[in-house]
Order: sequence, then structure tokens, then C-alpha cells
Amino acid sequence: MMPRVTFQPSGKFIDVPAGTELPAAAREAGVEIDSPCGGKGACGKCIVRIEHGEVDSDSLGMLPPTAVADGYVLACKTRLLDSVTVHVPESAGREGGKFVEEDETYLVRRELLPKDWDFDPLTVKWMIQVAPPHSDDGLGDMDRLIRAVQVDWGKREVVCTLGVLRELAEAIRRENGLVTVTLIRDAERLHVVRIEPGNQTIQHYAVAVDVGTTTVAVQLINLSLGRIVATRSCYNDQVTCGLDVISRINYAQRGEGLDELRRRVLKSINRLLEQVARHESIDPARITTAVVSGNTTMIHLLLGMTPEYIRLGPYTPTVLQAPYLTAREVGIEINPDSWICFSPHVGSYVGGDITAGVLCTDLATDSEKVGLFIDIGTNGEVVVGNRDFLLSCACSAGPAFEGAGIDCGMRAAVGAIERISVDAATGAGRYSTIGDARPLGICGSGMIDLLANLFLAGWIDPAGKFDRTRPSPSIRVDGRRAVYTVAPAEQTATGKPITISEIDVENIIRAKAAIYSATALMLEQVGVAVADLTSIYVAGGFGRFLDLDKAITLGLLPDLPRERFHFIGNASLMGSYMVVVSQDYRRRQMELARRMTYMDLSTNPRYMDQYTAALFLPHTETARFPSVRRSLSGVTPANG
Amino acid sequence: MMPRVTFQPSGKFIDVPAGTELPAAAREAGVEIDSPCGGKGACGKCIVRIEHGEVDSDSLGMLPPTAVADGYVLACKTRLLDSVTVHVPESAGREGGKFVEEDETYLVRRELLPKDWDFDPLTVKWMIQVAPPHSDDGLGDMDRLIRAVQVDWGKREVVCTLGVLRELAEAIRRENGLVTVTLIRDAERLHVVRIEPGNQTIQHYAVAVDVGTTTVAVQLINLSLGRIVATRSCYNDQVTCGLDVISRINYAQRGEGLDELRRRVLKSINRLLEQVARHESIDPARITTAVVSGNTTMIHLLLGMTPEYIRLGPYTPTVLQAPYLTAREVGIEINPDSWICFSPHVGSYVGGDITAGVLCTDLATDSEKVGLFIDIGTNGEVVVGNRDFLLSCACSAGPAFEGAGIDCGMRAAVGAIERISVDAATGAGRYSTIGDARPLGICGSGMIDLLANLFLAGWIDPAGKFDRTRPSPSIRVDGRRAVYTVAPAEQTATGKPITISEIDVENIIRAKAAIYSATALMLEQVGVAVADLTSIYVAGGFGRFLDLDKAITLGLLPDLPRERFHFIGNASLMGSYMVVVSQDYRRRQMELARRMTYMDLSTNPRYMDQYTAALFLPHTETARFPSVRRSLSGVTPANG
Repeated sequence: MMPRVTFQPSGKFIDVPAGTELPAAAREAGVEIDSPCGGKGACGKCIVRIEHGEVDSDSLGMLPPTAVADGYVLACKTRLLDSVTVHVPESAGREGGKFVEEDETYLVRRELLPKDWDFDPLTVKWMIQVAPPHSDDGLGDMDRLIRAVQVDWGKREVVCTLGVLRELAEAIRRENGLVTVTLIRDAERLHVVRIEPGNQTIQHYAVAVDVGTTTVAVQLINLSLGRIVATRSCYNDQVTCGLDVISRINYAQRGEGLDELRRRVLKSINRLLEQVARHESIDPARITTAVVSGNTTMIHLLLGMTPEYIRLGPYTPTVLQAPYLTAREVGIEINPDSWICFSPHVGSYVGGDITAGVLCTDLATDSEKVGLFIDIGTNGEVVVGNRDFLLSCACSAGPAFEGAGIDCGMRAAVGAIERISVDAATGAGRYSTIGDARPLGICGSGMIDLLANLFLAGWIDPAGKFDRTRPSPSIRVDGRRAVYTVAPAEQTATGKPITISEIDVENIIRAKAAIYSATALMLEQVGVAVADLTSIYVAGGFGRFLDLDKAITLGLLPDLPRERFHFIGNASLMGSYMVVVSQDYRRRQMELARRMTYMDLSTNPRYMDQYTAALFLPHTETARFPSVRRSLSGVTPANG
Repeated sequence: MMPRVTFQPSGKFIDVPAGTELPAAAREAGVEIDSPCGGKGACGKCIVRIEHGEVDSDSLGMLPPTAVADGYVLACKTRLLDSVTVHVPESAGREGGKFVEEDETYLVRRELLPKDWDFDPLTVKWMIQVAPPHSDDGLGDMDRLIRAVQVDWGKREVVCTLGVLRELAEAIRRENGLVTVTLIRDAERLHVVRIEPGNQTIQHYAVAVDVGTTTVAVQLINLSLGRIVATRSCYNDQVTCGLDVISRINYAQRGEGLDELRRRVLKSINRLLEQVARHESIDPARITTAVVSGNTTMIHLLLGMTPEYIRLGPYTPTVLQAPYLTAREVGIEINPDSWICFSPHVGSYVGGDITAGVLCTDLATDSEKVGLFIDIGTNGEVVVGNRDFLLSCACSAGPAFEGAGIDCGMRAAVGAIERISVDAATGAGRYSTIGDARPLGICGSGMIDLLANLFLAGWIDPAGKFDRTRPSPSIRVDGRRAVYTVAPAEQTATGKPITISEIDVENIIRAKAAIYSATALMLEQVGVAVADLTSIYVAGGFGRFLDLDKAITLGLLPDLPRERFHFIGNASLMGSYMVVVSQDYRRRQMELARRMTYMDLSTNPRYMDQYTAALFLPHTETARFPSVRRSLSGVTPANG
């Protein structure tokens, strides 16, 4: 008989051969166990407790002996010997984001869309009149369809998909030859990917897809109206396989790891597609284009291409510009003959999300002024340039601002604490949540607000340590570490307190330091003074809005006049939308991807110095942040 | 509880809702019941016996009352009311052909292949050296692969499939950039459909596929050697859904009928593909092109396109020239990114099998002499022409020469009686079988041999009736009908006698009359005297060889000097092979499809007269067959 593993508190169980690794058994049983480090036993996040039975575990040395004695093990280092009962702790932050509805306005700020473009989408719906059949003209239905298309579109080669051929005979006979075709255009050909009898031109949809390391977002566009009709986002289901791209690349190398990662991200995308289609009450077969943007690793994983050489020198990915592929091949559940169009990558660490994002700015088009683009995601990417040059770099910020890797972190969704003010005297906080719901966790903008306010009020010091000298009802010191309670258990939706620990604060400081130092070093290398930047575009999924003063207070963004900043939210998604609606944008995107050069920070000896110097609030060199210095001196005279 | 249907002798059973039609229950249980008329209750072939239980049957009026009293019903007219046991008679002829191995030489006569062609296949394997990766050249693996292809093939657009992209990173790193790519060429682009590390150019395969109404044949070609390495054929699994194209078109209109027909023919093709791949011990993924030829209806069914308008005026099929499709889309189990290339059709009743077949002749290339091409299949097609004109017509011959619709008929496979001599004095026959195996049935060439010999010896008269005035050990008169025993039960592989009845003889005479009259009428219309034909190409799956004298004796072929005839066997398959190995042939085929015109016999008032006149052996006008008249006068003076 095979050992049975029972998981608590869910009660799910599965019989597996002796020797099976615990995470594999959990996966098979449908139980999620976090494994942010990719199963290397390095992060300690997959800690579970063996309540009953024998296991073979390698956790000693990584867990304290007292914890091991109590039955705690690292799941990734544990094999099953006999039937066991395993207690899996809940991961409230991650789960929280999964079950909430959200409003599309949180993700795209439509008013920011550039104005100077032509509505000229990759895919068009077109009504044509097909000539009636004749026995002696030697033409099949397809030949007559092609001639009808060529009447309006000229003598280009017209190619029909098998799906169209199957519908063709009935479609052209239903309304006396009047049909609506969906056409996709490439340089030489017209591809007929769908045919419907009669006039169906009003039912025309496309999607923009942003595949982030932590978050996936999908936007449904009604091309007949030229309007975004629904946006949804969720965590990338790959998150349980590792929190950052390096952990994912590690995970992909294990057995069926690559295929599992591919299926997981597809599942996330298809779940969102189903949601946006349901929101608009349409058949997903009506969606006939998808523009997909993501970092180089994410797109490799989505397409099932080995990501290994992204990480190994000389850092050459399989594709920078993926060819057009069909939805059927990729596994994206829209019309199976639809084309999937991928945003071009610049290199292994500057991907299509950045070429889509920069498309939303005037960075590449403004001839004189130098602008800056910062995408704050799990990877942080920074682009500086104008019409004459475009330089990009990347840094590993971690997913803190997207709510992952933080105890009570969550995505910017209903129930997320997005703003927190702090009573300077007591240190107590007052929060507000997205949707005014009972709080589930804290999103990126909430963390920034909280940390900046605590810092301005002197409740945390420049190194991120809580003030232990003054009593506060919100601060509790647990051994060597302090924990700040944002919302007590009785106020929250989960019945557990929402807190920020000093470890969380460290994570956030590391994230901001990575982004700031990458920005500062790149500007230094290219010889542009911070003060000369005329526009700074800030993109990212940290929340509905970023409080600019607070972000500068923390030293995440350079201290410049506030009017030079533009928050553009999920720019990767917005850029994808622009490519959906305009072929001219597609050309501009290809052009800027060609022009953009990549600077490798990891080989730059000055990067570590810059990073270390930025591990303080706002920075070791406070002269870089004159407005923060002024605020601090105003509020807390002791620091002046 | 649902009624249970048990089928005997197989013992298979299934539970189905009351009211289910018997053929549907049989299909679901995996029991085959013949339905040659397409379920119209017209052919009486689906007769089964209800051994137990109640049914609701409409068979009375179609079956004699005594048979109905004994429990016999037509399955297609029967619904289930309660649990029943059904006895399904074996269909020895059809089953016989399914389980025998065969030699490829039966199907293609290689020595007949034209000599004036270049080896220039649609798909090529090519070894290239991909440059090593560099971090600063801004090229992904795909870019370097494309550049390496362009070194040899020029600056054409190169497109990689997703399958190739998934293998790419590992393939180019395994042997220092030395890889073998499989390329498919169209007018503008090169498509990379497969990549392997190192030199794998010797492992290159394609297939030619002939999809006939009754028979499907597949030929494996080793493109590295330019050689046919295996050929296999089997009955088209659609045969149980109707014997001719009209019955199949009817069948396609019922519920899921079209999809069932599609799956059935795919099953036949894929079974043969598996056989040829196994014969050569290769992975089917090494097969990267298929050229498929079939009549217009067969290709519509294979692609899941409604065939209805082939049969309805003005007889317009969906496609005459199907576009290139991938094996994945079509469902043909070779390398899924392979291209499937279809032979062009001329019209609804002259299909790709004919444009492939004519390619094997000099009909379209000879400038002065007029030649004739006759394809004897379930549909008979006739083409007459030279370099200046090509005229085609079609007639419904029925599947008699392919062994279907004849009691003991079978395909030309091991165990088929292929030759029969007749003792003039006693009427007794001596047969030989393919592979010298115990006989299973009679193939087309055996039927032609038998009928001609019986006719020459006076044992059947010009109307096809057996001589009842002389006793013969082989002839038994059963009521109004006579039956001729070819092999008694104790000699056969099935333990049942192999016979030819007068009904079978009538079927064969109708088949030959259809073909002869179509030929004669077309020649008359185009003003070509039979005697002026310089070459007559005869194609078809009637057997290993056709005895020319015997075919002329029956009046199947015109009475001309024997040296003008060329038997080219399965010309559709041979033509497909030619398109596989040479793009020049592909161009010639497209050209001849464009040039060929179609003559509709069904609207010609003279066709019925011609057909009726041909319903005798050899013909009512014996002057048309002078050599037969001489033979008859030599052997049986009474007829002289």
C-alpha cells in the first residue's frame, strides 16, 4: 500500500509512492505550498509541520533544533516515508488577493493615453459581398471569398484558416453572400481568421495582456467602439514556484518544471480572459488578437522555451522578438486562429513589458529633453533617453511593492490598505482600504505611505528600525524584532492582525535601494544630471496611486520638482493596448526596441557601493534629498 | 435503468436511453454495422437479427414478412425500446482486407515514374553552423539561427515554429552551433519546422497519401535517399457510413455525421502512417511533409468542411485548392508543424486524385497525340487531351472493382483471389491468390478474370446470366438466381465458400458500363475517334495487374492495340509522390488543374443511352470490339 499524505487544515489527501517529495505530493493533491526560492531550501517559506508519521527531512541546519523537535520541516527538503499528516500554514497575503473583484480603473489611467495616433488595429472586421456560385466559372467558395476581399483590399495574397474553411459554405449561403470577415494583416498577406454571416462588424474584440513575474493583467478592448471594456488582474500562478525570475529559472530546470510553469501562467491568463469575457457577456471566440507583454523570462516560460540561458553568460535568450503565433499553439483561450503578438525584448533583463511601457511615454520621441522611465516591479527596470539615445538597465527589486514576500502584503485589490496616516505622538495608524472593505492586507502604496509617515514622525530611523525608546500601542517588540500593527485582528477580514515587521521594512528598503541606485548609476554613466531630467514616468502595480512625496521621502524616486513626475500605472498593459489599436504603435515599438541599448549593472563595480549607500531612508547622502531634509527638520527638530 | 444492448457474436454491450437508434448504439459500443446507403433503409445491408427483446422497427415493407417474423430488421430503421440482444452478421469481405499485410509493390509501379524531373522536394533538411552567442550583439538564438539559414538561402524571410523555438536553445548548444534544420519553402518565406543538433540530414521523410472513397493508401518516402521505403493501404473507415460519395454526403448531414466521417478517415490515414513508420523504425516526428490527393468530397470530409454543396447545383465545393495547413490542424499524425499539401481539384467530381494521376502521364505534355486517362475507382474519372486541351468527366462506377458491394469482394491484399482460369467444358475455376495464401475473397482483377473467362467459355451470356442449360459443379441455381463457387468452404481462410452471384455480376457489368460509356461519350463530344488514341493510361486499385485482354473482353476498356495501354496502378498515390519529391511537379500539377475543363455527363441526354448500350458483354454493338468478336467466334462457334 502506498503512503497516504493528509494535508491540514484542508483535509485533502493523496496516496503517493514512498520517497515522493512533499511539494510534489502537495501539488498533486491540489494543495499550494509556497516555494519562493524555487525549492533550494534557502528561503524557509515552505515551512510545514508534520503532525503525524515519518518523513525523511534535511531541514536541520536550516531550521532551529527546537522547531525541528516540534515537527517543523522545510517541505522542499522533505521526502515521504510512510503515511503522514501535514499541517500547512495559511498564506493570508497571497490568498487574499485571489478572491477579490476589482475595478479596471485601478490599473489603467486612460486619460494618460497619448493622443497622436491613428485607430488602425492589427485585426479588422470587414463586411463583404461574396458573388453567388456558378457552375462554370471554375471557382470554389474560397476563391469567391478571396476575390470579394480583394475588391476592398487590393490584389494581396489572402489566406484562409481551416476554421474559416469549415464555416465558409454555410456562412456565405445564409445571407445571400453577405458576410463579415475578421482579417489580420501582415506585411504581404491578409489572413482571414473568422467568418460570420451577415453584418457582425460591431462584435469585434482584442485583448492586451501583461505577464508580470508576480501579477498578470488582462484588458478587453472592444475594437468596434475603440474602447477598453474590462480589466482584470491576479497573481501569476507561478508565484508558488519562486518569487523572482531567478527562482523560476531554477524551477524550470527540474523535471517537468518548465511545463508546469507554462501551464501555471496560462491558467492565470485564461482565468482572467474568462472573467473579462464574462463581464462583457461575449464568447471568447470573438476575441481575435492578443498583444502580450512581459519580461524576457516570463515570455520564455509562457512559450515553453528554456529560460536557462537568460541567466547564464553571455545571457542570450532564445527570442528577443517572438514571431506571430496562433492562440491555439500558445494555449491562450481566445479564438484559436487568432494571432498572439509579443512585445519585443531588448535583452535578457529588459523585456517586452519595458518596450510596451516606454511606448506610453514621450521618452523615445522627444528630441531635446532627456526623460526617465522607471518600472517598479519584481524586477525594476530603468530607461533614460530621448530621440537620440535610449539606455536601459534592470535591477532585482523583489516583489515587495506588489505585496509578495511581505507578511501581510497583497496586490492592489479590494480590501488592500492603500493609505495610512500616522499619529506623530502615539505612532498609531489610521488606514483606508480599496473599496472601503474590511482590510485583507497592505498593498504597495500602503506600505510606502506607512513607512514614509513612520519615518517622518520619527517612529522608524533611517536604517528602518522602530523606535524602542517611546511606548506606542502599535509597536510590539518580539525578542530582537519589532512589529507594527496596522489593523488589529478584530478589524480585519481574515480575523488576523495586519502587521509590518522590521523584516518587512528591510525588504521594502532593499527594494527601493535597488531601484534608486540603478537610476542614479545609469544617469551617472550617461552623464545626465538628475536635475536635468524633464520628465520622470513611474510605472508599476504598487497601487491605485503612488503618493509622490512619500516615495521621495523613502528615497525610492529622485528628489525633483513634483510636476515633472507622471504616474502611468501598469504601463506594460497600456502599451499593449496601444499596439492592439494601432499598427503605427507596433512599428514605433519595434523601432524603440531596436534603438534601446542595455547596460549590465551586475558587472559594474560601482553598483554595489551605490546600492549600499541607498539602504537608508532616504539615503546616506541626505544632500541628494533636499526636500526630505527640509520636511524632517520641520517635523522632528531632534534630527535637524 | 437504461436498456442494455448486447451485440453477438462479439458479446459487446452498452446501456443507452430508450429510443436510441440501433446504429448509434452499435457505434458507441464499438460494433461496426454496414450502412452503405447512408442510413436511408435503401440497401438492406445493415440487416441484423434481434435475438431477444423489443424494438421499434420500420423494416416491414423493406424486408420480407417471413424475415421480419424471424427477428430480422434493418438496423438503420430500428430504435431500442428495452434491453435486447442483437446478432450482427460478419461482413467477411470487408473485414478480410483489414487484417492482412501487403507488399508495397502492389500499389506503385516504380519503373513507370517519369524520368525528366529534378529532385527538389518541398521540404529539405539542411545543416548549418550557428554563430556562438555574444552578450553585446543584441541577437537572440533565433536571430542567429535565421542569419545562419540566410547564409545558404539568401535574404529571404525565415519563420520559426513554436516547436523549433522550444528546442532551439539546447539544440544549438549541443554541438557547438552545428544543427540540422528542416525547411519548408513557399514563394516568399522559409519555414523552419524542425531543428536537431548535429548532422541529421540523413533522417528525412515525407509521405504521399491517397484518400479514396473505398481505399486509403500511404507511402513513406525517404527523402535523403529519394526512395519509397514503404507503402500500405486499407479500407477507408468511412465505408461503414456509405459506399459512395453521395451516401457519405448524406451521412455528413446527420447530427455529428461530418465530424464522425472526418475522424474515421483520419483514423485510417493515421493507422497507415503508424504502419509505415514502424516498418522503417522511425519516429513519425521525422516525417515533415505530406502530399494528400483525393476526390473533392473526400478532402472536404477530411478537413471537416461541409460537402453538401458538392452535390447541390451549381455544384460548388468550398475549396478547389486547399491552402497549406499544418499536420496539427488537420489531425494527421506526423510532425505537427509539417505542412499538408493538397492536390488541386478541378471541380466537384474531378478531384485531386485525378490531377495527381494525370501528372504520372504524358497526357498534358504531349503536343500532338491525344491520350486517354481512365481512373477506375468508386467514382470513375476519364480525362482526354494533349498539350492543347484537357477534358475530364466523372461517372459513378461503384466500388465493385475495389471489392466493396460484392458479396465476397475484397481489396488487392494477401489472400485475394487475383486470377481465375475456367475449364471450358465443366465451368470449374482454378484460382491463384496474392501471396499464395488461403483465399479470403476476390479482388477486382480476379473478378475481371473470372467474368471474362466465363464469358469466353460461354458460361455467362452477354447479359451476365449463367448458362442454366449445362450442368456445372461450380454453378448452383437458387430460386431465380445462379451462384458461381470460386473456392469451396474447405479451401478458404474463412471456412465459408467464396462465390460470385448473378447480382455481383450485374454490379460489375454496371461498373464497367459506366466507365466505358463515359469514355465513349466524351471522345464523341470532343471529336476524337477511339482509334486515334495513342496512349491509354489505366489507373485504379483493382489488383496487382489488370489482364488487358480480359478487361477489353468485358467491354471495360476500348478495343485497341494492346501496346497503347499503360497500367499505372494507384496513380493518385504516384502523383502525390512526384509532388513530394519535386516542386516542378507541383507547378505542373497546378497548371494542369487550371487547364483541365469538366464535362458534366449527368446533364447530357445521350449518356443514359450510351450507358444502357454498354450493359452487355462486351457491348450491344459488338462491332466496337472486333478482337473480342474474333475470340468468341474462335472458341464458341455457336455465337459466331
